Amino acid sequence: MRTRFEPHHDEIRLTAVFHALSDPVRLNIVRKLLVDTDVSCATLYADMPKSTRSYHFRVLRESGVTRTFVEGAHHRIVIRCDDLDSRFPGILDALRRASEPL
Amino acid sequence: MRTRFEPHHDEIRLTAVFHALSDPVRLNIVRKLLVDTDVSCATLYADMPKSTRSYHFRVLRESGVTRTFVEGAHHRIVIRCDDLDSRFPGILDALRRASEPL
Repeated sequence: MRTRFEPHHDEIRLTAVFHALSDPVRLNIVRKLLVDTDVSCATLYADMPKSTRSYHFRVLRESGVTRTFVEGAHHRIVIRCDDLDSRFPGILDALRRASEPL
Repeated sequence: MRTRFEPHHDEIRLTAVFHALSDPVRLNIVRKLLVDTDVSCATLYADMPKSTRSYHFRVLRESGVTRTFVEGAHHRIVIRCDDLDSRFPGILDALRRASEPL
């Protein structure tokens, strides 16, 4: 089984989080997940090539922004709210309040 | 005179701000400027090659994170706190509170 890297709480770097959020697709995924907290990966950007979506999900996961749960053939993705709120208080609240449309 | 691009308030994009903050050097510059609000560019990363520093200052300026004032041969750099606080409330506060050392 391929190991899926997810940084531990203390290993989440602010620069990696900002890099993950610096892409419009990834930022939109995160902001959607902040509204609808538990989503099947298959429903996010369903019309995008699978390899492109997988890349974005990987960047989000490896930065520590999201956690991915594998359930058979299905992947669910959630924001690591507790980890991010304790490591970088206010970042997620600022994202929730950002005025740019989804 | 060369035009120095700085986005207007409404043109500041969240993804561009996050890109500017995704580099350790630029993130450190911003966090230093949040403490010491008005700084000569020459004193920031003084031992770094000038071309590299200029690149980082340009990314910060063009993203809308900073404003640069040219006074003769001297450049001063400040965070656009009012613009960022109104466009993306809480982002700067979250940066001030982030627990990673400068």
